[in-house]
Amino acid sequence: MASIFTKIIQGDIPSYKIAEDDKHYAFLDINPAAEGHVLCIPKKEVDYIFDLPAEELSALMEFSQKVAKGIDEALEPIRTGIIVEGMEVPHAHVHLIPIYEKTQAFSLGKKVDPNEERMQELANQISGKVAL
Amino acid sequence: MASIFTKIIQGDIPSYKIAEDDKHYAFLDINPAAEGHVLCIPKKEVDYIFDLPAEELSALMEFSQKVAKGIDEALEPIRTGIIVEGMEVPHAHVHLIPIYEKTQAFSLGKKVDPNEERMQELANQISGKVAL
Repeated sequence: MASIFTKIIQGDIPSYKIAEDDKHYAFLDINPAAEGHVLCIPKKEVDYIFDLPAEELSALMEFSQKVAKGIDEALEPIRTGIIVEGMEVPHAHVHLIPIYEKTQAFSLGKKVDPNEERMQELANQISGKVAL
Repeated sequence: MASIFTKIIQGDIPSYKIAEDDKHYAFLDINPAAEGHVLCIPKKEVDYIFDLPAEELSALMEFSQKVAKGIDEALEPIRTGIIVEGMEVPHAHVHLIPIYEKTQAFSLGKKVDPNEERMQELANQISGKVAL
């Protein structure tokens, strides 16, 4: 059965899309740890990120880097951090979480609650700055 | 001035070394979030991980993947997760944190306190399983 992320890639489940290339997709996390929290995923369904062949791990990280640069340019956090935990959805994903304050708790879990309009605005701002 | 991590690479500050190649170094975090928590760093001093050229980011992640496979083989966690926050030491570093239980809090900060003997044992176990 397709993972929830595969359904998002296929458009069967809506998402606030940030960027896409032939092998990757990026969209806003709907349980954001901070405004502009993005998930970057390979289109190929692999559960554990370290099971990806080295070159596919590299490609995912280079895609994530481009998205992070878009976040940084659009939202101007101090920087954007990375979390990969992967205990919830069995489809490898890189969390990109903007860090706005040095004291910001850096962990997963919904910590802010932007409404739909704000989520769309964030998606538009970030996607407009991502150069693939 | 050399970062604390550069001093570790140079041997001026001792570390529980896990692995090293010409461009990277891995060692146990002395404030472990879990037993076998490893830091992977590029030897080149760059503060922000996403400021690394794409090919150097890829090389760091491929090195980290080899170390993670060593952790997984040596300690048999459910899997090994990644955190990159970087607000403390201005030298890019990838935290590899073994996840032993689904409910384990996944964040930085000392959560276990292995003594020196145990740290050395963990370092020996992991380094013995890392294939570069």
